[in-house]
Amino acid sequence: MYPVEILTLFPGMVSGYVGESILGKAQERGKLSVTATDIREYAEGKHRVTDDTPYGGGAGMVMKVEPLVAAIEAARARHPGAKVLLMSPRGPAFTQARARELVSHSAGLILVCGRYEGVDERVMPFLDEELSLGDFILTGGEIAALAVVDAVARLLPGVLGNQASHVSESFEEGLLEHPQYTRPPVFRGAEVPAVLQSGDHARIARWRRWKALMLTRERRPDLFGRLELGKADQKLLALREEDL
Amino acid sequence: MYPVEILTLFPGMVSGYVGESILGKAQERGKLSVTATDIREYAEGKHRVTDDTPYGGGAGMVMKVEPLVAAIEAARARHPGAKVLLMSPRGPAFTQARARELVSHSAGLILVCGRYEGVDERVMPFLDEELSLGDFILTGGEIAALAVVDAVARLLPGVLGNQASHVSESFEEGLLEHPQYTRPPVFRGAEVPAVLQSGDHARIARWRRWKALMLTRERRPDLFGRLELGKADQKLLALREEDL
Repeated sequence: MYPVEILTLFPGMVSGYVGESILGKAQERGKLSVTATDIREYAEGKHRVTDDTPYGGGAGMVMKVEPLVAAIEAARARHPGAKVLLMSPRGPAFTQARARELVSHSAGLILVCGRYEGVDERVMPFLDEELSLGDFILTGGEIAALAVVDAVARLLPGVLGNQASHVSESFEEGLLEHPQYTRPPVFRGAEVPAVLQSGDHARIARWRRWKALMLTRERRPDLFGRLELGKADQKLLALREEDL
Repeated sequence: MYPVEILTLFPGMVSGYVGESILGKAQERGKLSVTATDIREYAEGKHRVTDDTPYGGGAGMVMKVEPLVAAIEAARARHPGAKVLLMSPRGPAFTQARARELVSHSAGLILVCGRYEGVDERVMPFLDEELSLGDFILTGGEIAALAVVDAVARLLPGVLGNQASHVSESFEEGLLEHPQYTRPPVFRGAEVPAVLQSGDHARIARWRRWKALMLTRERRPDLFGRLELGKADQKLLALREEDL
């Protein structure tokens, strides 16, 4: 059972997502537990205030350090050894390699969602790392936390089953996926490529690999440049689609 | 009113998120409308099947083209001129610049969530673009759709108010944000930097700019390298923190 605790001011933002589909099933099957804890429960006083104006003036509100640290310490007590990550645009970008590292940390994760307008800097010593979803600005860390839970959960043994593990391996090579088709054979005049209906498995594998290589070269030259291509792939790349 | 329609097999995954906080308020105030439409409603037959095994064999299931295209066409009829985006790891990465482009497209967005295991390729001519959240694999496009809605909504006029627009400008310059502090002045021995309590607004502005520049240089040399720094910034970078 891989534990994830999400610390947020808006538990309702994450609970809907994590109850459905693959994450819901993974929890039913005891592979994963995801809880959302309201940071406000750790705020003091009648009004349980969690933010305040910034020192030095300026726009927006800043999340107060005391409720955040109290929530983190309580979560660490519930999940000893768990890694504490702050979802923050200042962190390094989340990647598939990072998801694999996190899934191997079996003590689990505590994901802290700041409002992106700002978190009191003094929370930093109580975290293990900051992590960013990408170079865009969100209203808070909740979507980033969901992305981390989702990407990590699908790598847990027994969550997807054998079928899809193949797909993940394909991505782990740093290639985009080849095109996929399913029934019907013709849709508004568009046919499924004949090779996929040929029953010739070696030729199908060649075609898919060629498509994946070409697609990666065309759309993601950065990924393509980092590939270490074997001789078979190099020969494949010299062919035209009709000669595969 | 900026319209967003999310096409998904799991409307419950997105409805919780979009009802809360800033997105919830933006909808109450008539700045934004977000609807989640179940693709299954557009599937034919008693069982409303939305996926099938791939032509050519292999792992996983592929989303069928007919229900997807029917759902897209119905959504286009409801939102004429809206841009149709497929959330897909094959697309270019979502960025803040992309969020600004999308918000200027006032006819709104139709966000199509595939299960990432695969979508029948023949849906492509019915889309305007593919868009990726980053180089990691999710179980489906729903989190990516939420990220797009969130990042776009906070840029809509009147959604955040004047306060936070300042924050967004700071990001648009390609800088990470300076550290923030709020009360109390001392937390477990950690003090708020004296400069922020000085009341000297010019010095505070200088300190914040210096911190933002240093943080960006240290953590994101890629962003830092793309900055076009003026003379004032270059002079600032030559200073030590204690001389600001």
